[in-house]
Amino acid sequence: MPQRKILPPGVSAADFDSALRGFADAVGQEWVLASDEDRHAYLDAFAPGDADVHAASAGVAPKSVEEVQAVVKVANRYGVPLWPISSGRNLAYGGSAPVVRGSVVLDLKRMNRVLEINEKLGYALVEPGVSFFDLFDALQAAGGKLWISTPAPGWGSVIGNALEHGVGYTPYGVHADTICGMEVVLANGEVVRTGMGAVSGSREWQAFKYGYGPVWDLMFTQSNFGVVTKMGVWLMPEPEAVANYAISVPQLTDLAAMVDTLRPLRLDNTLNADYTIQNPFRAIMDELSMQGKTRDSLYKGSGSLPLALIEKELRARGKGMWNVGFNVFDSDKGLDLREAKIREAFARIPGSRLETMRWRKGEPLAGWMRVTPVLFPLAGVDWYGGPGGHINFAPVCAPFGDRVTELYEAIYKRYREFGIDYYCGLLNIGPRALVVNAVTFFNRDDPEMTRKGREMYRALAKDGAAMGFGDYRAHISFMDDIAAMYGFNDHALQKLNERIKDAVDPRGILAPGKQGIWPAALRAKRSSQT
Amino acid sequence: MPQRKILPPGVSAADFDSALRGFADAVGQEWVLASDEDRHAYLDAFAPGDADVHAASAGVAPKSVEEVQAVVKVANRYGVPLWPISSGRNLAYGGSAPVVRGSVVLDLKRMNRVLEINEKLGYALVEPGVSFFDLFDALQAAGGKLWISTPAPGWGSVIGNALEHGVGYTPYGVHADTICGMEVVLANGEVVRTGMGAVSGSREWQAFKYGYGPVWDLMFTQSNFGVVTKMGVWLMPEPEAVANYAISVPQLTDLAAMVDTLRPLRLDNTLNADYTIQNPFRAIMDELSMQGKTRDSLYKGSGSLPLALIEKELRARGKGMWNVGFNVFDSDKGLDLREAKIREAFARIPGSRLETMRWRKGEPLAGWMRVTPVLFPLAGVDWYGGPGGHINFAPVCAPFGDRVTELYEAIYKRYREFGIDYYCGLLNIGPRALVVNAVTFFNRDDPEMTRKGREMYRALAKDGAAMGFGDYRAHISFMDDIAAMYGFNDHALQKLNERIKDAVDPRGILAPGKQGIWPAALRAKRSSQT
Repeated sequence: MPQRKILPPGVSAADFDSALRGFADAVGQEWVLASDEDRHAYLDAFAPGDADVHAASAGVAPKSVEEVQAVVKVANRYGVPLWPISSGRNLAYGGSAPVVRGSVVLDLKRMNRVLEINEKLGYALVEPGVSFFDLFDALQAAGGKLWISTPAPGWGSVIGNALEHGVGYTPYGVHADTICGMEVVLANGEVVRTGMGAVSGSREWQAFKYGYGPVWDLMFTQSNFGVVTKMGVWLMPEPEAVANYAISVPQLTDLAAMVDTLRPLRLDNTLNADYTIQNPFRAIMDELSMQGKTRDSLYKGSGSLPLALIEKELRARGKGMWNVGFNVFDSDKGLDLREAKIREAFARIPGSRLETMRWRKGEPLAGWMRVTPVLFPLAGVDWYGGPGGHINFAPVCAPFGDRVTELYEAIYKRYREFGIDYYCGLLNIGPRALVVNAVTFFNRDDPEMTRKGREMYRALAKDGAAMGFGDYRAHISFMDDIAAMYGFNDHALQKLNERIKDAVDPRGILAPGKQGIWPAALRAKRSSQT
Repeated sequence: MPQRKILPPGVSAADFDSALRGFADAVGQEWVLASDEDRHAYLDAFAPGDADVHAASAGVAPKSVEEVQAVVKVANRYGVPLWPISSGRNLAYGGSAPVVRGSVVLDLKRMNRVLEINEKLGYALVEPGVSFFDLFDALQAAGGKLWISTPAPGWGSVIGNALEHGVGYTPYGVHADTICGMEVVLANGEVVRTGMGAVSGSREWQAFKYGYGPVWDLMFTQSNFGVVTKMGVWLMPEPEAVANYAISVPQLTDLAAMVDTLRPLRLDNTLNADYTIQNPFRAIMDELSMQGKTRDSLYKGSGSLPLALIEKELRARGKGMWNVGFNVFDSDKGLDLREAKIREAFARIPGSRLETMRWRKGEPLAGWMRVTPVLFPLAGVDWYGGPGGHINFAPVCAPFGDRVTELYEAIYKRYREFGIDYYCGLLNIGPRALVVNAVTFFNRDDPEMTRKGREMYRALAKDGAAMGFGDYRAHISFMDDIAAMYGFNDHALQKLNERIKDAVDPRGILAPGKQGIWPAALRAKRSSQT
């Protein structure tokens, strides 16, 4: 097949060839991935539009820190932007694809060693290619005394997920909170270890987050300041018991009561893991999707699915309108104490129903515990038929019933205006926040539907900012839009980000445009602020 | 009194006068504190040597963010280094005094407003001058449903303590962990809000730590990259009950068993707050000091207090050799479950003894709960008679009995060599670490004793680094020594710190030398690495 070459911005074909040769010197020819097939593999499978807009020019897959250093130096020499990925499974956010077309994907999947497991101190030290499956297997082999906190699905990278501020469903579910110590290759090729790792020969690298002086781990999350080559992750010791709770409330107007009931329980740690609330649409859409059905089976009309229909469907099934699920971790007796408080609190919402199940130490791990990695097709992604895609608008909101309802309804208004079905989950993140995760499904073969999804997303970002809300993540196509939501004092935070970008990566070779952070030379590419 | 002027390094008397006039324009003449008395008030009262080495040239005390911005701009114009302090109570670490002689203390004590208390979401937004007393009073006035985590004593600043990685004795005791959202004045005078605070009009600033993009809060801790003018702090909701445990073990060799018994209890959160282990010397020294007695009452010999004597004294009192204390927070029944585990674990150490007491909601708060700020003279500071001072060598160590013992004994060896009494506490910080906090008391009127203390400190820093340990804090006189412990890869972390310093503070006006981070122009002042 003839190569239809894609070039990095501002790099000549000759320089790009030289860079590829340099990469081959660094990692071996077979790990410079520059064929059409290679490039295709890095495209965003769920792109909300033309995936080629974010096409990579090539990939390069080092095996070691030294190889990463060598690659970074070559990239600097030729001004080739690198887009580091761990496993490339950041689906719905761009997968493996870079913001800037023509970037070279720095593919870290070959760096997949679990370097240390410490059962007595509850941590692991891992490389970026280690998936939740890999870590789970290694922990089981080490004795099974430590548990992972896994997102769904579990094929993603432990490091990649934490760096992108991903979440799980255990007391260790805010994954950025579990980071303890990093090794990072800076844009100049220098290797830095953070925290106690900066002490030569330290055995405390994964024991203490703060070290001495400023603390940098979180600087390297959702950013483009370095390539994380090792990361410590704190892990939960196996508890004595786990309980699952599924609670429903009967009325469409009960969202506020549900949120206000959960808030104090989560704040005082009676609920010691994050909860997820399903909106009425999601309950039905998930059920049908899991049966392999699409929208047509429910409704043939255009426009946004009518709420009255969904209410009718839920009532026909004897289900509540809003459903929350969460797990709690403690001893068996400790769970009894917690459950009494949960029951008492929800008993105050008329018609609420609670179902529960429990695991006790010694029993086999069950899927509902969310501590075993699983693979399942994303429910609903093909809702509109055809090869499906989805994007998520996910503003952070404090769990106050009235505030959450106001935001939820404002988003719903746009879904109705754009005629899109309102699939939404309220994902609790830590003791004091949730995100209203409004998902837009689209049929990727339907350009008009995809265009509508993009337009609505941009409208939602503007609505959210006007209401004082900001998203916690963004797809590569919308990173500038979401960055624009964070505009306090003439975008002072963005200016700080970019001042530091210029200092640590003066040629701008690492992930330009990630989270709206542009290096000086490419700042004109910023899409949303004019 | 004639003014014996101290000047900032490299600043002419004329420029310094202009700067002081500029400060007066910014904050009002009465808040430019440039008299001998003013300067004297900023000296380190516990200086391990000549306090004048760290004398300030003046102080300036703004009342608002805008005044801080104006002060910073004046400092930039004249190249005057500023040393920001919150309340100046960072005793044993330098108090209010700057690293660089002639710095102007940027005294934030007048910015002392509790800007917001949110009982439902468990947080406060405070200014730097707010002390633990101030916050406690404000929380009580707001309803008393939220508790502080206070160090001892409570006169320090909530912000200052968190920024210096201070600790308390509740589930919220790792104070840097409780930071959620900052407002910072950068060296160029720009105001940045971090996290969700970067969304104009955000009500989630204190609800979610991560915002969008890189997370900067911890960049501004133990550093000199900005002046923190507001900070969110997460607060614990009032629990139903609190228990205190005081446990002793009988043998000098029982330290390892005590540490190994505590580790799994702390890791699985049975102990949900930090513990403190007293070494044998400290138990006796604290007792005598609290009776107003000094060393002479116990021992008249020179050299380090003999361990055999201390053992004899403890046995005479019927006390154990090692004593640990901690509080646990839960419901009354929840505490019963935790206590059963604690008792079972310590029953495995022959001769261990446990005493406990309990508070239940509705009872008045007691001092032992460590949730009310208190003032008491630092026990032991005048141990050697005369006006006392002390410095702390405090390496971080994972709580493994053998490792802790090895480090503890290595430090003890130096105390014996230098003939200093070995007052030591093992301070747990979070689930996976402790610091071996080796305190050196000295009589400030005895220059030879003070010199010995300094020398031993520097020897300990070198010993610790050679063993792979690093301290978590440092006195202003030793900030370079401790930075030198973090030397991995030719001081790569320090280079990163200073690259960022140069980017965000090119004139180097903010706290030069703090934590060993020097601006380009003053880098030659670094004391310990040659």
